[in-house]
Amino acid sequence: MKILMIVVIMAMFQEAEPFINRLGLQKIVSSLDKQLPIEVFKGKVNESDVILIVNGKDKRFGVDNVGTQPATLSTYLAINNFNPNLLINAGTGGGFHAKGANIGDVYIGSDFIRFHDRRIPIPGFKEYGVGSYRVPDFDQLATDLGLKKGIISTGNSLDIIPKDLEMIKANEAVIKDMEAAAIAWVAELYNIPLITLKSITDLVDSKKPTQDEFMKNLSLASENLQKKLIAAINFCAGKTINEIIDRA
Amino acid sequence: MKILMIVVIMAMFQEAEPFINRLGLQKIVSSLDKQLPIEVFKGKVNESDVILIVNGKDKRFGVDNVGTQPATLSTYLAINNFNPNLLINAGTGGGFHAKGANIGDVYIGSDFIRFHDRRIPIPGFKEYGVGSYRVPDFDQLATDLGLKKGIISTGNSLDIIPKDLEMIKANEAVIKDMEAAAIAWVAELYNIPLITLKSITDLVDSKKPTQDEFMKNLSLASENLQKKLIAAINFCAGKTINEIIDRA
Repeated sequence: MKILMIVVIMAMFQEAEPFINRLGLQKIVSSLDKQLPIEVFKGKVNESDVILIVNGKDKRFGVDNVGTQPATLSTYLAINNFNPNLLINAGTGGGFHAKGANIGDVYIGSDFIRFHDRRIPIPGFKEYGVGSYRVPDFDQLATDLGLKKGIISTGNSLDIIPKDLEMIKANEAVIKDMEAAAIAWVAELYNIPLITLKSITDLVDSKKPTQDEFMKNLSLASENLQKKLIAAINFCAGKTINEIIDRA
Repeated sequence: MKILMIVVIMAMFQEAEPFINRLGLQKIVSSLDKQLPIEVFKGKVNESDVILIVNGKDKRFGVDNVGTQPATLSTYLAINNFNPNLLINAGTGGGFHAKGANIGDVYIGSDFIRFHDRRIPIPGFKEYGVGSYRVPDFDQLATDLGLKKGIISTGNSLDIIPKDLEMIKANEAVIKDMEAAAIAWVAELYNIPLITLKSITDLVDSKKPTQDEFMKNLSLASENLQKKLIAAINFCAGKTINEIIDRA
């Protein structure tokens, strides 16, 4: 089946803005429930419809609905309202300089997407907590677009504490984000292939506070993200899923 | 408007089983998507329909879908499929002995429900992360049922680490659970009143590992929970929301 409906899920409007502008996406009044803060945009690339879902703003605090709870809901709504052939989660994240990451690099999630803040030390629950959602091999896509590859680890905090760092290392992760594993969980329930693109705003293993680096580099990272995201959509649109996944 | 549809959301089947048995709830094939692991049960108390949504099992790991991501989805589905007048989140949690909690006590969430594992040190995002979802005053309900009252703090981990403990203390919480704040977020989006009942399986400030205490006391806690949950439903069913909320 050809990829004719791609849904992109992004947490923050600032992350999405360069993508919206470059692709000329139009905001639509969607069939999604009006009581939800979600924003929906629509466009077209080649033969494929492109829907962008941004998590929107929290009414009380006026900030973007980041983290795994809104991401879970957006993914469910994306799948049930737009029936995509392909999901793309695009956003920003922290990288590890020791593993080769630099500010502004764009990674594609590889191998597994895992949680690092769901510690449940009971057999079975332990593994459920980490999740380890399998990522298809998008080797050709990564090569063509010049994307770095790495395991993504997700948690609901922007900062880093020793226990999270320990879990991220156990997860063999190169990128730390706040949404991907939640999106991967819902995508797996519906068996929809998921591409994750993460642009690096900060280096987790630097001495600088994450929040300062994040704010300073958000614009650069979102601009770089937009380029790779559009290239990825161009790569996928109109192909079949089998054509974009490399099978060993 | 009278309370004629109560939806109860529970994470684990073991927590729910005594409640299902005592109330004679029947499992129904719901209109909920078949690809979701959620289980739905139905019954009646006085004039009110009672729907129980249990998060179901993770297919890969065979364990209950605990934590905030499944709870978010269940709450959304509960509201959109059953249009409840009242939501009840019933489950187990950790308590603080220093604040008066004992194993098997059943608490009703009061004042606020907060997150302790969403640390985002940027103004606005910090407060968003903690959430602080307002809980109505259910003083008469608490008094009539002999429930202890306390602030609930939610995180995705069963264990306790120093940073979580610091955040729970800052949250002025008496109970630590793994779902309530996620449920409260969705309930707030739809302006549906939420009662939270938490039965204590373990004492966070004891020296014993949470997971050992949790497994040992789950059955006792679930039995106690069932009694108070049924009493709460009896208290609410057929009344109006104004009659069950005490306004200062």
